[in-house]
Amino acid sequence: QMPRGNLETIHHRALVLAQLRKWLDNLRFRDAFECMRKLRINLNFIYDHNPKVFLENIKTFITQLNSTNHINLFLTELKEEDTTGSMYPRPEGIPVQTPHVSGQKKVDVVCDSLRSTMESMGPNKFFLSILTAHVKKTVPELEIALQKVHELRVSPPDAPGAVGAEEALKYLLFLVNVNDLYEHSLGTYDFDLVLMVAEKSQKDPKEYLPFLNMLKSLEPNYQRYTIDKHLKRYRKALTHLSKCGNERFPEALQLVKEQKLYTEALRLYTADRAHYKALSCAYAEHLVEQQQAEQAGLLLWRCGEPASALQAFAGSSSWRNAICVAQQIPLPPDQLALLARDLAGKLIEQRRHAEAALLLDQYAKDCEEAILALITGAVWEEALRLIYMHDRQDITETNLKPALLEAVSTHTAFLEAQLVMFTRHRNRLAVVREQKAKARLDLLGENGPDCPDAELYSEASSVMTGSKYSQSNSRISSRSSKNRRKAERKKLSLKEGSPLEDRALMYALGELITTVDKMREEVHGLLKALVLFQFDKQAQKLQLVYEEGLQMMEAAVPEVWPEPLQNSQAPLTGPDATANSIMASFQQQQQRPAASQQDAEVPTPPKMRNGVKWKLNVLT
Amino acid sequence: QMPRGNLETIHHRALVLAQLRKWLDNLRFRDAFECMRKLRINLNFIYDHNPKVFLENIKTFITQLNSTNHINLFLTELKEEDTTGSMYPRPEGIPVQTPHVSGQKKVDVVCDSLRSTMESMGPNKFFLSILTAHVKKTVPELEIALQKVHELRVSPPDAPGAVGAEEALKYLLFLVNVNDLYEHSLGTYDFDLVLMVAEKSQKDPKEYLPFLNMLKSLEPNYQRYTIDKHLKRYRKALTHLSKCGNERFPEALQLVKEQKLYTEALRLYTADRAHYKALSCAYAEHLVEQQQAEQAGLLLWRCGEPASALQAFAGSSSWRNAICVAQQIPLPPDQLALLARDLAGKLIEQRRHAEAALLLDQYAKDCEEAILALITGAVWEEALRLIYMHDRQDITETNLKPALLEAVSTHTAFLEAQLVMFTRHRNRLAVVREQKAKARLDLLGENGPDCPDAELYSEASSVMTGSKYSQSNSRISSRSSKNRRKAERKKLSLKEGSPLEDRALMYALGELITTVDKMREEVHGLLKALVLFQFDKQAQKLQLVYEEGLQMMEAAVPEVWPEPLQNSQAPLTGPDATANSIMASFQQQQQRPAASQQDAEVPTPPKMRNGVKWKLNVLT
Repeated sequence: QMPRGNLETIHHRALVLAQLRKWLDNLRFRDAFECMRKLRINLNFIYDHNPKVFLENIKTFITQLNSTNHINLFLTELKEEDTTGSMYPRPEGIPVQTPHVSGQKKVDVVCDSLRSTMESMGPNKFFLSILTAHVKKTVPELEIALQKVHELRVSPPDAPGAVGAEEALKYLLFLVNVNDLYEHSLGTYDFDLVLMVAEKSQKDPKEYLPFLNMLKSLEPNYQRYTIDKHLKRYRKALTHLSKCGNERFPEALQLVKEQKLYTEALRLYTADRAHYKALSCAYAEHLVEQQQAEQAGLLLWRCGEPASALQAFAGSSSWRNAICVAQQIPLPPDQLALLARDLAGKLIEQRRHAEAALLLDQYAKDCEEAILALITGAVWEEALRLIYMHDRQDITETNLKPALLEAVSTHTAFLEAQLVMFTRHRNRLAVVREQKAKARLDLLGENGPDCPDAELYSEASSVMTGSKYSQSNSRISSRSSKNRRKAERKKLSLKEGSPLEDRALMYALGELITTVDKMREEVHGLLKALVLFQFDKQAQKLQLVYEEGLQMMEAAVPEVWPEPLQNSQAPLTGPDATANSIMASFQQQQQRPAASQQDAEVPTPPKMRNGVKWKLNVLT
Repeated sequence: QMPRGNLETIHHRALVLAQLRKWLDNLRFRDAFECMRKLRINLNFIYDHNPKVFLENIKTFITQLNSTNHINLFLTELKEEDTTGSMYPRPEGIPVQTPHVSGQKKVDVVCDSLRSTMESMGPNKFFLSILTAHVKKTVPELEIALQKVHELRVSPPDAPGAVGAEEALKYLLFLVNVNDLYEHSLGTYDFDLVLMVAEKSQKDPKEYLPFLNMLKSLEPNYQRYTIDKHLKRYRKALTHLSKCGNERFPEALQLVKEQKLYTEALRLYTADRAHYKALSCAYAEHLVEQQQAEQAGLLLWRCGEPASALQAFAGSSSWRNAICVAQQIPLPPDQLALLARDLAGKLIEQRRHAEAALLLDQYAKDCEEAILALITGAVWEEALRLIYMHDRQDITETNLKPALLEAVSTHTAFLEAQLVMFTRHRNRLAVVREQKAKARLDLLGENGPDCPDAELYSEASSVMTGSKYSQSNSRISSRSSKNRRKAERKKLSLKEGSPLEDRALMYALGELITTVDKMREEVHGLLKALVLFQFDKQAQKLQLVYEEGLQMMEAAVPEVWPEPLQNSQAPLTGPDATANSIMASFQQQQQRPAASQQDAEVPTPPKMRNGVKWKLNVLT
């Protein structure tokens, strides 16, 4: 005979589970239940084994168990976890059942199904189990349970063996904390029920009776408000308070501000203009604090507070709304002009020159300032439009042309600097990669593939073997991974010899490409303006520099972000290789991408927008 | 003794190469050269072995060879290919030299270096080799070579052993095709030279003499133009023709049009206003044909053809320029208004409602049409601005509010439909994947990993194992790969059971996400307008639907674009596995991504722009 031990227990359980599965498949719930009780197998398995079959045969389950106690035992042991996951895994080959109805939680599904079946089979017979089903839901339905006990007391059933109210309440107190039950009884606004629970709770009547009497003396809506507030159910409290008439409004406003119930309040007080306005103003104040001045402005404007609305809009650079409100007030022309200038100034700070120019032109009636704003913002065509509209061709000579010439030389110089930097980083990257590859080869040669130091040099290759899933993965918690990436990038240093210099160079190269690629529209507009004013030579030079730059960058992409190096991926084989050594080297490679993901995000190649056409034929 | 065979030859060559490397490293060029000649080893190796050392020791090389014939032999055998690449690979461990100076071709570098060294050592002594160096460049410098022969004839050197012009010409004719040489001699515009070559060429003097005499009779610039045109050197031809005065301009214009030398022509005729204008008009016509009407307009405007410019701008929806030109002409107000209406119509067709409204408002002076255009284009804030600017609040009631209500119901319905479709595709994808995985497992189980049919079912997993480099790779020839992707997508069918149904579903899901994600700005603007007009309920519903939709899609991304499945990546091991079987299964996996790349691009997860805030607090 074999010695008894762990191994046998495991085998034993496997056999038991096989038997249980058979019983459950044959709907022999009673046999399964008793066996599981005896062997302390988690009762959730009855459901988890095949949720669909269980839910379709609840009546059979209840009939076979035929005992309030047993059903209660099953209900109280319900857990969200699927026991066929880790605890009692399914034998291989049997497809995993989608365990519960979409959206709903398993515990709720089972409780509700059992309860409704028991209610149809005998509400008195299964009374305690029905209570259990209410209480065991993920959000316990204590009010309903209490209500049912109350009904039992008011009209006791004369069925034989029916449970009495007294016994039912005792059972509820056994399932639920006394204070919870008392609070929830208050929440039913039914003082009979409250007293019933309070009496059972061994609370001091000197404590709860004055409070209950005070409540009883209140107007019904205000009474309910007071109870809701006591139970911290502020939304309900506000709903009841809103029905208490005008004199209670200050109290309501206070509650709204304290509990930030602004949107609920606006919904409740829609009909009353004065209260609605007061609430809107309070909400607007809160929104301004939350940096949501534009939304505050909308609320203030629509409730008839244009002056405050104007302030809110102006504060959030919501200039169109600000101007509309100003014209509705209406602001006198000089003040409107001042407002427009003020808004334009803010927009220029945000580099929104076209919008600033519109304000200056149409509301401040200052076309010269408008044109200058457009020239500053390099919005060449629109500047020219205003120049012709206001017949101010003089500005073309005094400002537009000089600005164009300055822009072309700035852009050309900027591009040249970016390209020099790009070439420098690119060359350096080649050197760093070569050094790393060489250092790694040397180590491998000396110590063989198992050398732990080799990992030190695997970074260079890890950069190249990262899968695209490093990206898709990070999307799950994009905010935190964004922060992590930021933190990682800080660690990267372009200093020669820094440990992750190659990755830092890849980031820097990617950013250079993005910067230069972003300039397509800008360069296109500038080139057209230059051609119009016959600055062909300068335009040609810019076009040439930009085109060469883009081509050079595009050509560098496969070198900077190469395909995984084939040599470093191939497993180490040869006459001396064994199955184990091959596996080891293979696993090493498998793990590398994962490791590198933790180290730092793999830099991905930037996308170039070759679809954006910017080149002028006339300059070729 | 071993039998003689291939093996020995290979070893022999390896030994020879080792010896050659030693000689070259020790600058024993002559020994290397003679050995290589004897054993028919490619002479490029002399340079390729160590370009830097060779270029630094050219004088030594020439001195050691000390023979025009040998140097010519070396020069004529020069090829761009690096012989240390595939032909005579470097022994491992020796770093690869960057083979040639950046940008320049190897052949040109070697020819130029040898030539200048020989010229300094003895231009007469190495005369034929110098000619060879000119002729062997990637773009043969035949004119220069001819010029040198001509100089030799004009003033024969009296150095002993110097080559005569006759002999040099004969040598040139041996290197180069006679007709090529004749044409190039024409290109020097030197009739002595032409005659010299012509005489040697055995051409019929009756053929070339009349032509040469005709040329001689022409004005020098026109003569050169005629020669250039004969040689199809049209740019040079145009340059010479432009110096021939006004009466030749029609001919020049003809040439420009035929050869599309517009930009060159504009450069050459900048000084002459009339010609410049004629050329600009011709170019503009060509640009309009090339769908570049805007650039045509710029050329016409700047050369003083505003009417044609207006037409070109109007035709390309370059409305700002069109309006500017119209005001410069100036167009009478009623015609300007007509033009503005016309342009606005075209812009509305392109869904550029804000620009159309500007034209209608400011140039057609029709604020009502402008406001209606903005409402049609869902540019709510700007519509409201014009309503207040022109005091047309009546339009708010008649058009704006109904349009808002229609927009919110359209958007809500559209979103709901998209989300239904998304859920349907997503569920179907799960089913298809499960089926494929099961079918593949079944096959593997029956036939083992070598079963060729298993490949049929590998697509499901190949979708998941594709690396990000399928992307970066395709950028190399982005145009062709874009076309290929398009063609691939056509092959994908959403029909149930189609072979690539899973991939088609992934594409469809990605497109749904992109569509819904794109609506952020639109929904934000609509919600604000709805709040302003108290349509809170409708706004709340839209906000809810949109938020749930975005959340659902974001949550689905890791499921639809999962990480590579771990099981399908693990190599097949077990007690029966051998090194070979593991390797085979591993290699199969290695090849799969590459294969899938050929089959169809791996769908990449779309990016969601969570940075774009669209939700309104006031609607929560």
